[in-house]
Amino acid sequence: MVASAASDPWDALRALPTGQRIELTDPHGSSWTGTIVPRHELSGDRILPLKLASGYNVGIRVGPDFRFRVLDAPPRTPPVVAARSVGASAPDRAVAPPVTLLTTGGTIASRVDYETGGVRPVGDEREILAFYPELVSGGPVHIVPVLDRLSEDIAPEDWVRLAEQVGAAFARGARGVVIAHGTDTMGFTSAALSFLLADLPGPVVLVGAQRSPDRPSSDGPSNLAAAVRVAREGDFGEVVVVMHEGLSDGAFAIHRGTQVRKMHSSRRDAFESRNAPPLGRLDATGLHWRRRPHPRSEGPARVDGPIDARGGLLTFYPGLPPERAAAFADGLRGVVLAGTGLGHVASSHLDWIRAAIDRGVVIAMTTQCLAGNVDPFVYATGRELARAGVLYLDDLLPETAYVKLLWALGHATTPPAVAALLRAEVAGEFEWRHLPKEAT
Amino acid sequence: MVASAASDPWDALRALPTGQRIELTDPHGSSWTGTIVPRHELSGDRILPLKLASGYNVGIRVGPDFRFRVLDAPPRTPPVVAARSVGASAPDRAVAPPVTLLTTGGTIASRVDYETGGVRPVGDEREILAFYPELVSGGPVHIVPVLDRLSEDIAPEDWVRLAEQVGAAFARGARGVVIAHGTDTMGFTSAALSFLLADLPGPVVLVGAQRSPDRPSSDGPSNLAAAVRVAREGDFGEVVVVMHEGLSDGAFAIHRGTQVRKMHSSRRDAFESRNAPPLGRLDATGLHWRRRPHPRSEGPARVDGPIDARGGLLTFYPGLPPERAAAFADGLRGVVLAGTGLGHVASSHLDWIRAAIDRGVVIAMTTQCLAGNVDPFVYATGRELARAGVLYLDDLLPETAYVKLLWALGHATTPPAVAALLRAEVAGEFEWRHLPKEAT
Repeated sequence: MVASAASDPWDALRALPTGQRIELTDPHGSSWTGTIVPRHELSGDRILPLKLASGYNVGIRVGPDFRFRVLDAPPRTPPVVAARSVGASAPDRAVAPPVTLLTTGGTIASRVDYETGGVRPVGDEREILAFYPELVSGGPVHIVPVLDRLSEDIAPEDWVRLAEQVGAAFARGARGVVIAHGTDTMGFTSAALSFLLADLPGPVVLVGAQRSPDRPSSDGPSNLAAAVRVAREGDFGEVVVVMHEGLSDGAFAIHRGTQVRKMHSSRRDAFESRNAPPLGRLDATGLHWRRRPHPRSEGPARVDGPIDARGGLLTFYPGLPPERAAAFADGLRGVVLAGTGLGHVASSHLDWIRAAIDRGVVIAMTTQCLAGNVDPFVYATGRELARAGVLYLDDLLPETAYVKLLWALGHATTPPAVAALLRAEVAGEFEWRHLPKEAT
Repeated sequence: MVASAASDPWDALRALPTGQRIELTDPHGSSWTGTIVPRHELSGDRILPLKLASGYNVGIRVGPDFRFRVLDAPPRTPPVVAARSVGASAPDRAVAPPVTLLTTGGTIASRVDYETGGVRPVGDEREILAFYPELVSGGPVHIVPVLDRLSEDIAPEDWVRLAEQVGAAFARGARGVVIAHGTDTMGFTSAALSFLLADLPGPVVLVGAQRSPDRPSSDGPSNLAAAVRVAREGDFGEVVVVMHEGLSDGAFAIHRGTQVRKMHSSRRDAFESRNAPPLGRLDATGLHWRRRPHPRSEGPARVDGPIDARGGLLTFYPGLPPERAAAFADGLRGVVLAGTGLGHVASSHLDWIRAAIDRGVVIAMTTQCLAGNVDPFVYATGRELARAGVLYLDDLLPETAYVKLLWALGHATTPPAVAALLRAEVAGEFEWRHLPKEAT
């Protein structure tokens, strides 16, 4: 079929199915040969996304004087399993225990908008399968779209909604749950789910991508496949993050949800366990544990909410006026400070901290070094802060401490009770306490 | 000499010189043998600090019924060089070019307060030499106490004072300048001096210690010796940080002042160059460069002040209410955001950011990942932020960007002029711009 040079080719082009291979030629004779990839509703009118033989995708604005040729037979309907009906999986996959995939948006479920060149999230289950046909190759995967946004827009109330969906998935018989999530705030969400979910009968695996799945360099397919495998095969019951261990596609680190942080803006191996090695890794030879993960519970999984968002996280820096810090804390029930070194702020901040503690605000200390323990007993500043009632949170990451604060505020009324919850180990989040003590 | 059991030994003990070896016995027969180390004026009454044979220091509260024995002859007066008179150095050291050591307090110039067990800074030149007798072994060192405090209490105005002292030291003929500084905020100060000092005729080396010099495990002596050597022998003219490269005493990393961050609360090798390898290292075989440091200038060194402290640094996190962020920015001329990933905040923050920019506030973006570039052109959120006028600062650390903001605010009046200074390379602070571009 060749569109007539005289008629506008756009209507015919947009009617072609995803996967169709075509050759497109502009009026100057330039031509592109490629496969039509899913078109986002937010893509501009007349923008046709093509995957070229090089693997790169391009978006082409199709003028009325363009011509095109259909090169092969139209693709067959992709072998989409009945994603919502776990029991209907094919016999050879029926032995594999079912996994539920919760999607939230984020790069792993995003695609390039070929008009702007930017990346926008998609939430549609069919589109996920179009990008990740191998998703269901190892067994049934039940896809449940929960949110549809980039992770910088995920808020504390979403953590609770996600926790509830995890609980529902296990209640429906999932062996493990995968959450496809934007990487920007994945460490916050993984910590939140670690505190919010109790009695987990199987793995909860957060996974993301640093490149969107319609780009040839995407880490999305390999990360997602690894996450599904960990969720299906992992014999443990806690919240983890699975991402590239290094730059190659062969190995994936399994990080504890409370001890992981995004430490690079763009690399595939951006996620690092802090203050502890990763729990383990998945490579071609299987799952390997470096530390003992939390065992599976009998279940049922419980959502141990609620949370109270009246907590804050403030990073100290030289020149931060005490009044500005005090104003930041105003109206909050608790503040996690990311102090310097072993947990310090300028001594000029002691007054507002004392006043806040006097009126019942919980002030907790972590370190902006993002590694190592805080300790109020080494320097005079720390001693005075501890004497004022600042709670030192050992080796908790500031982000984990903040998330735990919101959880603790949702579970206790009085400052001493909130403090007791913050100091108690809830989800394997304290590492230093368990290490043999020696001079360092 | 044996103090009579009937008389209180305290007056005799406190009169003994530093360095005197004694045996001290309590009424129960327990005894300690050690050397008297300098006693801090803030140490409690009757507390005698002793360095034991094990190398550990203890503070002993001397009761009236204690006894002591003087074990050796009193020590000779330590060979303190005339620290303030460079020209008066001994002939064999006269060939070594002079180095100026500015002290500011911090652990490297701190000692344990034997009453409280905490660490307090000391500023006294003689005490520095008592702790670091080897300081002057390689040549003359001119000691200038500038500040006397832990580094969490060092404020932006102190950066200018330090810069002026560096300029004065070079004007007096120093070959290089060492600044002994607390490690907690050393990265802020090194960045500040990088922007504040121009036309440097020699090295400016910040150095600190993670353990105070009166503790046997102190990294202070080896760090300080390394810093002095880099200042004396280094053929370059920029601000660097010299600290342990690893856990052993044999190798020291030389970090560019704008690219270094304290990344562990207690380890000796807490300092890391971010987004670039260290400039070089010093080991037993000498100085080795991995990157080309900025060459020495003809001088004279200039202090390129002033700075304007009406800037702030705010780290975004999920659940940060836009109103709280807006209030934090209120009254400031500029705010550096430490956003997520490639430089994002929740889209709910766009309104206050637009309003702040409209009234002339400079809003700049960095990444809380602390590595990698920010980029507003990958995701929809970044595009909207850039369209609102947020300035993306490539691979600057949030802390370096904040310090540079204060410097830029001191040098320009209008927001576009401040923005132009922030985007211009001033002290080798941008790395990513100079790298060959390739898909990552």
